[in-house]
Amino acid sequence: MNNNKLKITFLGGVGEIGKNMTCLEYNNEIVIVDAGLTFPDDELPGVDIVIPDMTYLIENKAKIKALLLTHGHEDHIGAVPFLLQQLQVPIYGSRLTLALVENKMKEYPKVKYKAIAVKPKNVLKLGSFSIEFIKVSHSIAGSLALSITTPVGTVVHTGDFKVDYEPIDGEMTDLPRLGEIGKKGVQLLLCESTNVCRKGYSMSEKSVGRALDEIIKNHANNRIIVATFASNIHRMQQIMDIAEKYKRKIAFTGRSMINVSEVALKLGELKFNRENIVDIEKVDKMDDKEILIMTTGSQGEPMSALTRMAAGEFKSLKIRENDLIILSASPIPGNEKNVYNVINALYKLGADVIYDELADVHTSGHACQEELKLMHSLVRPKFFIPIHGEYRHLKTHKELAMTLGMDGRNVLLPSIGMQVELGNNSIKEVGFVKAGQRLVDGMGIGDMDSNVLRERKQLSEDGICVVCVNINNIAGEVVGEPFIITRGVVYADEQESFVQDAKACIIASLKESDLRGVEPSMIRASLRRNISNFIFKRTKRRPMILTIVTLE
Amino acid sequence: MNNNKLKITFLGGVGEIGKNMTCLEYNNEIVIVDAGLTFPDDELPGVDIVIPDMTYLIENKAKIKALLLTHGHEDHIGAVPFLLQQLQVPIYGSRLTLALVENKMKEYPKVKYKAIAVKPKNVLKLGSFSIEFIKVSHSIAGSLALSITTPVGTVVHTGDFKVDYEPIDGEMTDLPRLGEIGKKGVQLLLCESTNVCRKGYSMSEKSVGRALDEIIKNHANNRIIVATFASNIHRMQQIMDIAEKYKRKIAFTGRSMINVSEVALKLGELKFNRENIVDIEKVDKMDDKEILIMTTGSQGEPMSALTRMAAGEFKSLKIRENDLIILSASPIPGNEKNVYNVINALYKLGADVIYDELADVHTSGHACQEELKLMHSLVRPKFFIPIHGEYRHLKTHKELAMTLGMDGRNVLLPSIGMQVELGNNSIKEVGFVKAGQRLVDGMGIGDMDSNVLRERKQLSEDGICVVCVNINNIAGEVVGEPFIITRGVVYADEQESFVQDAKACIIASLKESDLRGVEPSMIRASLRRNISNFIFKRTKRRPMILTIVTLE
Repeated sequence: MNNNKLKITFLGGVGEIGKNMTCLEYNNEIVIVDAGLTFPDDELPGVDIVIPDMTYLIENKAKIKALLLTHGHEDHIGAVPFLLQQLQVPIYGSRLTLALVENKMKEYPKVKYKAIAVKPKNVLKLGSFSIEFIKVSHSIAGSLALSITTPVGTVVHTGDFKVDYEPIDGEMTDLPRLGEIGKKGVQLLLCESTNVCRKGYSMSEKSVGRALDEIIKNHANNRIIVATFASNIHRMQQIMDIAEKYKRKIAFTGRSMINVSEVALKLGELKFNRENIVDIEKVDKMDDKEILIMTTGSQGEPMSALTRMAAGEFKSLKIRENDLIILSASPIPGNEKNVYNVINALYKLGADVIYDELADVHTSGHACQEELKLMHSLVRPKFFIPIHGEYRHLKTHKELAMTLGMDGRNVLLPSIGMQVELGNNSIKEVGFVKAGQRLVDGMGIGDMDSNVLRERKQLSEDGICVVCVNINNIAGEVVGEPFIITRGVVYADEQESFVQDAKACIIASLKESDLRGVEPSMIRASLRRNISNFIFKRTKRRPMILTIVTLE
Repeated sequence: MNNNKLKITFLGGVGEIGKNMTCLEYNNEIVIVDAGLTFPDDELPGVDIVIPDMTYLIENKAKIKALLLTHGHEDHIGAVPFLLQQLQVPIYGSRLTLALVENKMKEYPKVKYKAIAVKPKNVLKLGSFSIEFIKVSHSIAGSLALSITTPVGTVVHTGDFKVDYEPIDGEMTDLPRLGEIGKKGVQLLLCESTNVCRKGYSMSEKSVGRALDEIIKNHANNRIIVATFASNIHRMQQIMDIAEKYKRKIAFTGRSMINVSEVALKLGELKFNRENIVDIEKVDKMDDKEILIMTTGSQGEPMSALTRMAAGEFKSLKIRENDLIILSASPIPGNEKNVYNVINALYKLGADVIYDELADVHTSGHACQEELKLMHSLVRPKFFIPIHGEYRHLKTHKELAMTLGMDGRNVLLPSIGMQVELGNNSIKEVGFVKAGQRLVDGMGIGDMDSNVLRERKQLSEDGICVVCVNINNIAGEVVGEPFIITRGVVYADEQESFVQDAKACIIASLKESDLRGVEPSMIRASLRRNISNFIFKRTKRRPMILTIVTLE
């Protein structure tokens, strides 16, 4: 019996909770699980990426033993460079995961770090922690769940997973081992919740392969372009196998597609005769039926190869009537509009397009309800924390666990920054640590609370109006004409009359005050108020108003 | 045999084609089908609504005989006030549709217009046109398809429809009449395409009622709040019937819910004992199991009643643990994020939430593939134009028609502003008319091409930087300090050093030029270039730069 507690801290995530980065802490030892980033939505205009706040880690850096990476997706490894710039910590993960980290770290040649490749069934002893890596299926190869034995008991962290009975690499989620661990007793399960609202089972990866095979067979005379996630090595392997079967050569385009295929071929995670790979520049001269092009852009990303093809702006390849484009992906929530715009544009160019609404050309990498039930039934934990989901997913995951017999009092719903203590017979929230998201925007990392975002949002909705006046505060006179510029406020045909009336308003406003000896700041407030009201009356908008009062 | 042609002009729609407004024109006679608006997406920041360009109608106003309204949804009637402010034209539609128009026109008391209620099977003679109204099922009562007989042949316009074998009002889509019309010969079918990518049949409205009944029965002790579309009278009727069955009183909240229920009760489209309606203000004092609240906000609209409840900002009602909220609606594409934010917030307040991912609490009002096939098979048109969809929907609808035996050469895919000529043996595109969307923004109606939108978008992504310098171009000197303001560019903690360095950059830039006799415009260009490069180096952003050079 041990009275010490295991502390679990949820550091990551915007929108989704229990994602990106989680810490397990026992006395003076910490292991970090994952260091991922999030791509922000429209609420954060102009922000490029969001990374977890690392203040807590920096404050406790002496305790940190390791960073454990479950798999190589951006939301799990994307913040590694930012972490390594601030902390020295050895990294453990599968070969592919580490190869993707290495690729990322090429942009930071000065940062040295230690990376140790692990395999399923490996056990890593780190002080009080004993970590076993467990093979799981997911939409990227080399995905691992973690079974972390601590003095308080065993914690199972599923990472991202699904149950695929027809895995491409022949090795499925290690259900027997999870069952064994469960039988020995699991104190806490941290289980992902992405697809907890979806009934039944996720489709197998091989059934996607069969659908793609059928489509490609039936379009023997078309040039074929397949867009998919570069990191989905198993999907890529299937597409390359199909290409080989129908005697098509492969060309890669898009930076991440080229990078990842290169890494995966080198590691042997992707197996293909390199002689059958051709340069994208040579494609336009080849016979349509001899080529299959694999491209990025399945999410309609504005600068991606497929989006540029759809816009007719991709130099090496022009879309034409005999092209069949397959989007072997689903739009990630928020990307629907971009994806459909690309599809509409490809259709307008005369090409044929097949996407997930029309055929089974994609499957999710995340467990649906029945797969989650299987995980719970194998691991049979005493306590449960649903992770990796919006609050509604975590709530629904709690209900799912309760239908399987879990006591609702043994389930805890986390939130960002929450710190939880796990004991032999208890789990409870013990507080919060600093975990506001850090925004990476161009070159700088800033605070979520920054005015910058509020300002950008106001600018985008209502525009801006800049007013300049030059005052002689000795004579008490306005010098010259007031100057007014607006952006995003007035339509072109109203501009002239608007500016004229606005100037009159400025002059009237200045006449309200005695300008002799006046402080510029005094005039600015009344000027702002008057011009704001003038613009509101005229346009029903409240643009940002900048007033510049200079003294002669 | 007649050699004259019927001209069809597609005036409406942003994103979706063949929606909002379509004209049929024969010699000197025009009938307009629908006058709807569209709610814009993030690409048009700050724009409130988008209406069709009416230039073509104004140019041809002497020809216009009627505006025919298929049903009362905003995308079909929302532009009526804008049309009536510019044109005098009699309006035909079902009683409910006209009541909703009347409600809308209350805001325009000076505009007089003539509205004539029609019923299914009515035939309206208008010059060369003979228009028969045909009952169809849709997610609003009083929906009509049109069979328009012209000297060139009969044109069937489906409006928005589905096939519901269990209609709430007892009258289903008039399939026999469509079959009769088809048998006599239809020259052209204009058929909606919203759900053409969905296999099978749409669920019946009554099956939604059964699901809601089950849920409400099983939550006998909870207070129940149902959010749905106010215009879905049949859904409202079912919910009110269920409330009555379980002895709950009804309270309405949300402006459109109160307006529409009032209109529908008055017309008898909604049947309910008024004694069982209670004021929303009294709800908090009632027993939870005696009340059912019907609210707007099923799309997570920021100012709606449900969103304010979720934010704890709704005065008459505070969400608590014993509340069950049912969202009897699906998120319209683009609204997902808002809807899920509301759901997450309601869960966090301790309430239970049921929405379309968890139960069959909603069905679409639009025909799925098998229903579309039924429509084609009954109408059996010679020519076909798919309408009311993105380009990918129209393309897929064409393919669907071809699988039913339609010759692909007899199908025409429209685009916005396209004018099509239908003859006895031909259909062809004959050109385009002005049909750029008109944006309604605050008080004004502006042009799609306006810089305003581009400006707002740039502002939102990269912010703005305003530089003011005062020059004495006789002495060739800068007077005083340059002035620089940024918004949405620099984070607060970097502001001071940024401004200092920016000023140095401005001064250095001015020193490049001989300032004696210089024109302000000459300095402005180099100043803008230099400051832009400075900011890019510093922040990797290209904000909008405004330069103000005043001469002393």
